[in-house]
Amino acid sequence: MNYLELIRKKRDGAELCENEIKFLVDGVASGNIPDYQLSAFLMAAYFKGMTPHETALLTDSMANSGDTLDLSMFGSLSADKHSTGGVGDKTTLIIAPTVAALGGKVAKMSGRALGHTGGTVDKLESIPGYKCELSPANFLEQVEKIGIAVIGQSASFAPADKSMYALRDVTATVNCAPLIASSIMSKKLAAGSHNIVLDVKVGSGAFLRTTEEAYELARMMTDIGRRCNRNVRAVLTDMDKPLGNAVGNVLEVKEAIDVLRGRGPDDLREVAVTLAGLLTAMIRGISDDEGISLARETLASGASYEKFKEWIGTQGGDTRYITAPELFGEASVTYEVKAESSGYVSAMDTEAIGLASTALGAGRVDKASKIDPLAGITLIKKTGDEVLRGETIALLHTSSPELAENGARIFNNAVSITSSVPEKRSLIFDIV
Amino acid sequence: MNYLELIRKKRDGAELCENEIKFLVDGVASGNIPDYQLSAFLMAAYFKGMTPHETALLTDSMANSGDTLDLSMFGSLSADKHSTGGVGDKTTLIIAPTVAALGGKVAKMSGRALGHTGGTVDKLESIPGYKCELSPANFLEQVEKIGIAVIGQSASFAPADKSMYALRDVTATVNCAPLIASSIMSKKLAAGSHNIVLDVKVGSGAFLRTTEEAYELARMMTDIGRRCNRNVRAVLTDMDKPLGNAVGNVLEVKEAIDVLRGRGPDDLREVAVTLAGLLTAMIRGISDDEGISLARETLASGASYEKFKEWIGTQGGDTRYITAPELFGEASVTYEVKAESSGYVSAMDTEAIGLASTALGAGRVDKASKIDPLAGITLIKKTGDEVLRGETIALLHTSSPELAENGARIFNNAVSITSSVPEKRSLIFDIV
Repeated sequence: MNYLELIRKKRDGAELCENEIKFLVDGVASGNIPDYQLSAFLMAAYFKGMTPHETALLTDSMANSGDTLDLSMFGSLSADKHSTGGVGDKTTLIIAPTVAALGGKVAKMSGRALGHTGGTVDKLESIPGYKCELSPANFLEQVEKIGIAVIGQSASFAPADKSMYALRDVTATVNCAPLIASSIMSKKLAAGSHNIVLDVKVGSGAFLRTTEEAYELARMMTDIGRRCNRNVRAVLTDMDKPLGNAVGNVLEVKEAIDVLRGRGPDDLREVAVTLAGLLTAMIRGISDDEGISLARETLASGASYEKFKEWIGTQGGDTRYITAPELFGEASVTYEVKAESSGYVSAMDTEAIGLASTALGAGRVDKASKIDPLAGITLIKKTGDEVLRGETIALLHTSSPELAENGARIFNNAVSITSSVPEKRSLIFDIV
Repeated sequence: MNYLELIRKKRDGAELCENEIKFLVDGVASGNIPDYQLSAFLMAAYFKGMTPHETALLTDSMANSGDTLDLSMFGSLSADKHSTGGVGDKTTLIIAPTVAALGGKVAKMSGRALGHTGGTVDKLESIPGYKCELSPANFLEQVEKIGIAVIGQSASFAPADKSMYALRDVTATVNCAPLIASSIMSKKLAAGSHNIVLDVKVGSGAFLRTTEEAYELARMMTDIGRRCNRNVRAVLTDMDKPLGNAVGNVLEVKEAIDVLRGRGPDDLREVAVTLAGLLTAMIRGISDDEGISLARETLASGASYEKFKEWIGTQGGDTRYITAPELFGEASVTYEVKAESSGYVSAMDTEAIGLASTALGAGRVDKASKIDPLAGITLIKKTGDEVLRGETIALLHTSSPELAENGARIFNNAVSITSSVPEKRSLIFDIV
């Protein structure tokens, strides 16, 4: 077996067998396969695709290319959630305590903000004292004790995926469904949970712009789960506008607390309840509807909120900020964005809104960027809302008038106002 | 402009413009483009192809990536010939002096044997004293003076092609018609001749196995020539059996001398006369038929033979070997291959015959291999010939009984004998 043979086979549309996929992934993990052969293979895969069997084998091999978490002590109770990335997506802060309050064991590793999307780890770190790094032993002990722990992603998980992704990024082979599916799922498999719910975002703020692409990816990922003996469900949700009204770390934590306290925006609550409900259904072996009802009740009862406080407190966070969110304070500069004409908000370029938030200080332009936890955007109007000329449509929160002007420029370009009422779009497209 | 953009563009099937092609080739020549991006680009080109315009731009850029030969002092008289590689192909030894005898200026750089194919440089070097390395000044002076010089290929010509080819070889992107066409033509353009004839070989001993592939490549190469202001013709010739009866360096030189003296096998003479005739037609601006007739007469008159002797002598070769080829001597071991059954030679796996010759010592397994100039094969029977069981079908010439046994094993597997008369195959399929 040699790498050239594998490239030729994929180029000619043949299916690689288990040994060949293992040989390839071992080559990636060990660095034995030269980058130029791996990139030729990836481009061939871009054109020829991968069969479901190949995709599952690739995922499994990548999942086992580094450290893995053994959650078998939690039996069928372990639960994990993943989002393909969006703007204003703070659902983990609601889902994780809800599932834990219902008896699930949520052992979650989350990412940081990059580009236009936010990251759960940055949101959690905006709570003073919260520790995003725990030793594996302490992590598991906390999950065991209170049913929940959320830490930063470990670089020692699925290193083959990390190398492969870095190469895809510079060889125009990112946008290949089986490669995307196996990249996401390899990290989820390595993280060890038996039950996994995937939030597949669709729209102008997501990397998937059409429901067709979202279905394809959702089906591939749930198929990988089935073939690798995990329970995996995927929900296609709207990301053609931000989720909720808050974009930015402290602003999003506050909005999540609002929802946990029974207030806050409906769209955020619905997505969170659906995802938490599906995990509950998998854990308890009940129907989707029963799981979603349970999640809704648990959130409404205040049990999710109590679990949230327990979680944040256990992981070092100052819970006074949870009970009295005004302690977070406010950004030094608040800028009101006014409607330039009357009509209806007909479209929001949500990626641009994410970039506006990043420009205000809430995100990262590169890995070294510092985040301003108080920066971000409060949306007053969203797609479908009627507006009058001069009315405030959003508040920008930042640290200087210059940053505010810059953010406002990006934000204004992102929002379209037209005279006709825009077509209504679903919040939740489907469950796969 | 960046490399990632070019990969994405090719991946999506768009046509690269002149600046983009130049940027790519400059990147290859300077080593600025990382191998992994070049290989991703090449695999995308494998799937998406290149337009005739792109192919010509690529060829021209690669031709200008290193040294080039200026043959403008010869006006429209300069002539070059290229073969896509075969077994028993010694036509250059006949074509070059014929064209020179007709007033052409043949400034040719030739390759060495590798794998199953022979190389003109190795054949010429089997003539004692022949010098395959001349300074550019001496090379041009000789062409000026006697109308002909043949030396080894310079590594300083089309270095971008050299780098690109090396990468294609290890990334399964060799077999891509526009890349093959531009690789061949970039070296021909750099070598500077105004008139170029291409021998595109088809069959079991060629890298092109079907006439369809051969037509595609021939059309691409003549098209590149047209777009780059050169006269280029291509001839599709049979390589489903070796050309002539001799395979191996001294054996082939002797056979070429036979033809130059008005004897020797018809197939070799026909191919040589056709290619030399097309060059003559281009140089003189006459019809193909007129050119071919002139070449035939020149060969028959002995003028080609006289020019051959002059050429070899001028370039340091001992012409006593030309006038008395028995001076070359014989290999120490001669092995007679006998027919294992009676019937007709129905097929010759010509690549395998080339490999048998290599195994006997006539070729190179790798670049460091030493060649035995006396080793090779004399074919007594070829495809279509009737044979009787026990009759000698070939003589193997080598340096030890072990090498003979090994060569015989490979040779026997390459020759099929059946009871029915095989269909006759054309020697020259077409002229493009």
